[in-house]
Amino acid sequence: MAGSSQKAAVLTSRDEDFPRWYQDVLNKAELADNGPVRGTMVIRPYAYALWEHMQTAVDARIKAAGAENVYLPLLIPQSYLEREAEHVDGFSPELAVVTHAGGKDLTEPAVVRPTSETVFGELMAKWIQSHRDLPMRLNQWANVVRWEMRPRIFLRTSEFLWQEGHTAHATRDEARTFARRIHLDVYRDFLHNMLAIPVLVGVKTEREKFAGAMSTMTCEAMMGDGKALQMATSHELGQNFAKAFDISYTDSAGQSQICWTTSWGSSTRMIGGLIMAHGDDHGLRLPPRVAPVQVVVIAVKNDDRTVTAASVLTDSLVTAGVRARLDARTDQGFGRRATEWELKGVPLRVEVGPRDLDHGESTVVRRDTRQRFTVGRDSTVTAIHELLDEIHTAMFAAAGDRLGQRTIDVDTLDAAVDASSTGFARIPWRVLGEHGERQLNAHAVTVRCLQTVDGALPDGETPEELMAIVGRSY
Amino acid sequence: MAGSSQKAAVLTSRDEDFPRWYQDVLNKAELADNGPVRGTMVIRPYAYALWEHMQTAVDARIKAAGAENVYLPLLIPQSYLEREAEHVDGFSPELAVVTHAGGKDLTEPAVVRPTSETVFGELMAKWIQSHRDLPMRLNQWANVVRWEMRPRIFLRTSEFLWQEGHTAHATRDEARTFARRIHLDVYRDFLHNMLAIPVLVGVKTEREKFAGAMSTMTCEAMMGDGKALQMATSHELGQNFAKAFDISYTDSAGQSQICWTTSWGSSTRMIGGLIMAHGDDHGLRLPPRVAPVQVVVIAVKNDDRTVTAASVLTDSLVTAGVRARLDARTDQGFGRRATEWELKGVPLRVEVGPRDLDHGESTVVRRDTRQRFTVGRDSTVTAIHELLDEIHTAMFAAAGDRLGQRTIDVDTLDAAVDASSTGFARIPWRVLGEHGERQLNAHAVTVRCLQTVDGALPDGETPEELMAIVGRSY
Repeated sequence: MAGSSQKAAVLTSRDEDFPRWYQDVLNKAELADNGPVRGTMVIRPYAYALWEHMQTAVDARIKAAGAENVYLPLLIPQSYLEREAEHVDGFSPELAVVTHAGGKDLTEPAVVRPTSETVFGELMAKWIQSHRDLPMRLNQWANVVRWEMRPRIFLRTSEFLWQEGHTAHATRDEARTFARRIHLDVYRDFLHNMLAIPVLVGVKTEREKFAGAMSTMTCEAMMGDGKALQMATSHELGQNFAKAFDISYTDSAGQSQICWTTSWGSSTRMIGGLIMAHGDDHGLRLPPRVAPVQVVVIAVKNDDRTVTAASVLTDSLVTAGVRARLDARTDQGFGRRATEWELKGVPLRVEVGPRDLDHGESTVVRRDTRQRFTVGRDSTVTAIHELLDEIHTAMFAAAGDRLGQRTIDVDTLDAAVDASSTGFARIPWRVLGEHGERQLNAHAVTVRCLQTVDGALPDGETPEELMAIVGRSY
Repeated sequence: MAGSSQKAAVLTSRDEDFPRWYQDVLNKAELADNGPVRGTMVIRPYAYALWEHMQTAVDARIKAAGAENVYLPLLIPQSYLEREAEHVDGFSPELAVVTHAGGKDLTEPAVVRPTSETVFGELMAKWIQSHRDLPMRLNQWANVVRWEMRPRIFLRTSEFLWQEGHTAHATRDEARTFARRIHLDVYRDFLHNMLAIPVLVGVKTEREKFAGAMSTMTCEAMMGDGKALQMATSHELGQNFAKAFDISYTDSAGQSQICWTTSWGSSTRMIGGLIMAHGDDHGLRLPPRVAPVQVVVIAVKNDDRTVTAASVLTDSLVTAGVRARLDARTDQGFGRRATEWELKGVPLRVEVGPRDLDHGESTVVRRDTRQRFTVGRDSTVTAIHELLDEIHTAMFAAAGDRLGQRTIDVDTLDAAVDASSTGFARIPWRVLGEHGERQLNAHAVTVRCLQTVDGALPDGETPEELMAIVGRSY
């Protein structure tokens, strides 16, 4: 097939140079460009459509958990960031500062939000008065800016898009239950059931957790090169944050009480994770439930009968609720077009040519396995619906197999470092400990999370009872 | 009713002080707050949910017209804004400039986007090579910053949310047809069929049009105080913009050609328009199709039977696709709760009390007319579906009546100024002319748009054949 030979030349292979393969996919699949200010990115239509499907799915889950969306200002007075000293230390080199506006220098510089955390803090303190105002569960979708010295598109950029949730509760138990719900029913569910990416859920170590949090939960995914990518985090902030911002309420007995808060976030970084978790040497492989185009119908030849049949099939797919697109660019070679759709990771390609029409069939090609088969024309729509579900399941299973095969149980630090060159190592925390963690770090290996021995999110266990998942990370 | 007497005290009346009434509604209906940096705003959950419904409806129309969404960076190198000299003059006092980032002063300052126009220009020049790349139809939803000396929430804020579309076409005719389609099928259709706000469509005069545009189309709405608010604009940019950015393509004969471009935008300002077009002395009145809560079901009394019945009714409304919410806060007075929902403009209120249950009825109150009537319990869901459509139609008609009654045909400049104190004046452009326009401006009256004598969007008529709509504006 013409497509196959061309493809080999299009992308660097993953084994040869994974970072270059990633950059090639971004360019050739028309996902993103560098922005004019160093470290920023342009999200092109195809990747933005993908993000819209991802965002819709995450947003629906956040709303189902009871949170409401708000929009807070981009610019924050510099003094706000001094409120929570622990964070200023973390952020200041990352801050972009507006010193000039309205034609003159500002009396107080304004920071472009690195997060809206401090503004949420101020507003919650104002909006929460009585126990009747609790729980307060807010979320924001917005752009944030954190100056990045070694930018990589989607993974680390000076500006990115994300959602950040902030909630306040009357009791520690309620806050904890809500944060776990977000972590498992929003993030993990989305990653598994929409992105087809199996993730390890666990808590961060003291060393790795969010400054000021009592506990940070994470979803860790394994990329195609065996490295880890943190896909989303959720924090139990205890009363630390509420004390810093004076977020308190009057209980039913008339007593003033400090709230218990949580925060949680996910970002366009997940797009990078999607590319690196599923992509192969032929390009992107998109999980069907978030793919902007689920099925491309290619009219192979430039004759009326073919183009009409391809168009009719596309319409019937769209009517059946499938995101289908017709490719009738018959002035361009078939192989070239097939390669392009393969690069763009469209889950299913239906090829309609004169021979298929003569036989009353359609030729269908799966992107995930690259299998090609024929389907009776009358049953094409039904077959495609089933195939899309099957592809999701197969992609999730394949990523799960890799995760399983490349996660090795070890009981020494050296073995953990070794295993980290190809994937993850699992080692009892009581064997590793804080001293071992620091030694790993010296090898650029980090503890990604702590889990129960069954691989569950810890729920009251002591660290000594937990297993550490270690690996190299993005 | 307790609610009625309380309400009178809650809001300043519109006749007494319209701007203060507006501010009162923003506060009491919990729509928005001032942000910590002067001129910025916090969009609270209720208004943000409204915006989400508006955005979804506008976005669907933009996509149906064939445009795709992208995301371009927030920060723009200062040099980009010098490309189009005409705009720099317009924007510079409005610009917020980042001079410091990554812990040091930037070599070249970066501007927080006042629009992404220049970045669209650069990217289109890069992405468009061949006639096959045309038409290129792009849109972006994003925040923009324009420093505002006299801020008013939603109407003029230093940061706001908007969409800006930018398209490039092979011919003037295609560009023109597309811009008109956006103006009529996206903006006017949305304003009429979703916001229930009748708008006058027309073109701006030379004096009022967008700098660099061949033609600027506008949708002008009349607010409750008779003033005009520009709700959306669409520009035919001819080849001016394409020449400035070198947006060209190779035609099928191999010749290089300059593109024809358009741009068009709408923003969170429309929320302000919605409040001022429909609100009354009791608060907001939300058009049903974008109302975050379409129906509130109030359990009047704290007894099990009432609360259960109200809850069952809410569930059946939700199942029937209605955005219904249960208010079972029976520890708070009924009147207070009724007032709150009235302030928030929920289109329908269903009151469920013991007496209603005894009679097998529900009491329904329309927000738009404040009419109260009873509906048989079994037919409540059907009745509510019909009522929601009826309310939309009635609100659109009422706003249309006001617009009609307060738009006066005049044939002298003095009469036009007089009429502008209560609404709009319609005067032939050949009577007014550019000299008359300048005289009107001296009275703080502007030409809102030029229309055909039939009130249609001009389509090739000379200005002398057109009617000018003049008024005071926000």
